[in-house]
Amino acid sequence: MSVITLKPCASRWVLKHQHKFKQSVRACSLRVKQKLGYEQDEKANEQYEYDSEYTFRYADLTTKLCDPTQLRSKPDVSELKFGQIFTDHMLKVFYHKQLRGWQKPNIIPFENISLHPAAKALHYSIELFEGMKAYRGVDGRIRLFRPDLNMQRMNVSSMSVGLPTFDTHELTKCIRRLIQIDQEWVPHSESSSLYIRPCIIGIDGTLGVVQSDSALLYTILCPVGGYFSNSSSSNEGVSLLADPAYIRAWPGGLGDRKTGSNYGPTIRVQKTALMKGLHQVLWLYGPDNQITEMGTMNCFVFYVEDNGQKVLVTPPLNGLILPGVTRQSVIQLCEEWNEFRVDQRTITMDEVIKLSRNGRLLEMFGSGTAASISPVSLIDFVGQTIRIPTVEHSQPLYKRIRDRLAAIQYGHVEHPWAVPIE
Amino acid sequence: MSVITLKPCASRWVLKHQHKFKQSVRACSLRVKQKLGYEQDEKANEQYEYDSEYTFRYADLTTKLCDPTQLRSKPDVSELKFGQIFTDHMLKVFYHKQLRGWQKPNIIPFENISLHPAAKALHYSIELFEGMKAYRGVDGRIRLFRPDLNMQRMNVSSMSVGLPTFDTHELTKCIRRLIQIDQEWVPHSESSSLYIRPCIIGIDGTLGVVQSDSALLYTILCPVGGYFSNSSSSNEGVSLLADPAYIRAWPGGLGDRKTGSNYGPTIRVQKTALMKGLHQVLWLYGPDNQITEMGTMNCFVFYVEDNGQKVLVTPPLNGLILPGVTRQSVIQLCEEWNEFRVDQRTITMDEVIKLSRNGRLLEMFGSGTAASISPVSLIDFVGQTIRIPTVEHSQPLYKRIRDRLAAIQYGHVEHPWAVPIE
Repeated sequence: MSVITLKPCASRWVLKHQHKFKQSVRACSLRVKQKLGYEQDEKANEQYEYDSEYTFRYADLTTKLCDPTQLRSKPDVSELKFGQIFTDHMLKVFYHKQLRGWQKPNIIPFENISLHPAAKALHYSIELFEGMKAYRGVDGRIRLFRPDLNMQRMNVSSMSVGLPTFDTHELTKCIRRLIQIDQEWVPHSESSSLYIRPCIIGIDGTLGVVQSDSALLYTILCPVGGYFSNSSSSNEGVSLLADPAYIRAWPGGLGDRKTGSNYGPTIRVQKTALMKGLHQVLWLYGPDNQITEMGTMNCFVFYVEDNGQKVLVTPPLNGLILPGVTRQSVIQLCEEWNEFRVDQRTITMDEVIKLSRNGRLLEMFGSGTAASISPVSLIDFVGQTIRIPTVEHSQPLYKRIRDRLAAIQYGHVEHPWAVPIE
Repeated sequence: MSVITLKPCASRWVLKHQHKFKQSVRACSLRVKQKLGYEQDEKANEQYEYDSEYTFRYADLTTKLCDPTQLRSKPDVSELKFGQIFTDHMLKVFYHKQLRGWQKPNIIPFENISLHPAAKALHYSIELFEGMKAYRGVDGRIRLFRPDLNMQRMNVSSMSVGLPTFDTHELTKCIRRLIQIDQEWVPHSESSSLYIRPCIIGIDGTLGVVQSDSALLYTILCPVGGYFSNSSSSNEGVSLLADPAYIRAWPGGLGDRKTGSNYGPTIRVQKTALMKGLHQVLWLYGPDNQITEMGTMNCFVFYVEDNGQKVLVTPPLNGLILPGVTRQSVIQLCEEWNEFRVDQRTITMDEVIKLSRNGRLLEMFGSGTAASISPVSLIDFVGQTIRIPTVEHSQPLYKRIRDRLAAIQYGHVEHPWAVPIE
């Protein structure tokens, strides 16, 4: 029960206890089965491990490749934008409760999806996604960055909107196969990568606001350059609109899940930011204007205490922010370096303004898979402009972190976070 | 600008000032045009009224009817459930910014929708919908109930997620034509109706979390019976789970819009309610457990004050609840009757419990297009069971309201809210 009715801190729990997670999902599924009366059938119970309702399996993957004539030409790496060009193939796995759950996974040529006009994803946002990247290393090998964390989070998101879970290792294996097939799409460049977008959508063609008994898990791939259209942002720093009138997430909601419902409502605010000549939104929360996320990234503030001690602070996993894989990695890297303190705690606009006034605010940056580490140069907060000297230091922390992550991702160093796909 | 950055109370404003709304949308569109530099072209300016970017037009509607052999048999009215069977045709209107906006509307045979796998509706919940009904009256004529209110609200929802607006009268005319074509699907029964589901989805096939420059507005129809699968609910009253751990909407969010993002996160809570043997969720807000909505309905409480005065209270349009068309109609009906006071104000669980203990809580009911007026019999609130005698009175208010609405909708009385479609 505790797994189904997830508490706001569940994401932190997931990140800390991932090794137990598979087991929990299985137990959860078992309980559901008990409710449904499956356990009365001893044989079904014995076959549990292989039950397609619980997961699809890589061993069942079928592959239909493009005709050589269908293969599209690869784009020029220097002209890559974010998420506009897709590779030749995609992965699809259907789930139909009435057909005992998960069906066999398929890799097929990239194609449109045909949906019933009442499909629940199109009306009620019964949908979730993940974002990962594959990097072509200096040694030519292709690596994924901590895919297990994304897959675990995907299961948590899926449960949140009543969609089915799966064995994360099986999906990782299917995705690795997809990348192998489209491997020539992984850019030969350290400023680019292959963005991986797995998602699950509820496809029941009925209008009741209830659980979807059918779902489609699919994965598409796109070679990407920088996330921001103007490359200046990643070097000159992004500017942020911080307006307490807009709230991204709240306690008792799904703000810490990668569900579609967290994104639609941000569009109008992002538009407002752009109209004011700013890059992104800094999401605040509460009467004390707590900093939560920026754009679609987690948020870090680097400053000096009165006593000269340097501190990197990032908001805690309290249900209001996404438990980012890059966020987690930044924290772990900096804790390993052990050169300054790393705090996961609430930080407010007041504190940022005070630090800025006292000249003790060193850096602020966002972290995320799509945009990596993005320095912040400015916050527009209810009429005040707070300038942040993130990019003005000779050896800024954000750059050191970005370089270290890139070194791991592109195989300059061997590291357990970077998992070669073959 | 004030139209684009809508404040939480905008919905109330819309309902009160609908007559000015078309003008505002036009002005809003004009400002967008000015930003885009359209106004430099005098000729474009003159042609403004006919600009397809601003709206599609009924006059441009093309119709492709089913083959007679494709027409499906109508279901037995007594077996109708909610939203499971659809009529023979649908309405589709595409919007492509690069093709000067709205394209010509089409009525076509009901068919699946083909979407790019990166379509923004499938990942970021850039989607919204409406719900209306057409009723076959005792005189055989088919009537819509206050369609203008739904159409206005649809425009407000659309702006909220960065999707295009349109002339509401043009959409109403297209939908009327669609119903005329499928008129034999409007049930010949006063316990059934034809549910109308217009929606708009963002269809850009790109992964950036930004505005969708392409959209699809479509409308599907389904003959429906009662909303609840067990018909007992409408007569015996629904039971509600009230758990302060789950929050549906928050100030600064989109809780007062009919966007997909408000529905996905409710699925897990609705599941929890069902597992506890309860019908629906009563959504609370804040430390004082304010009552906001129930399931997908607005909420009414009818009670007696100390002085014997009867009062009907419903939560205010403060951004946390949907500005329901049925809600608005209930308020207007009861104000016209002028037999008891009608308050739009915050009502908390504490107050409900106190009224119940003192025997002064008469009725509680939900209002909505799908479920009409639904009496409540029980609230399960953190371990307490609050029984509500809604259905135990000999002449309950909820039933009087439901009957009055039905009399208007099914043409027993002539009323301006019921608009014949031909």
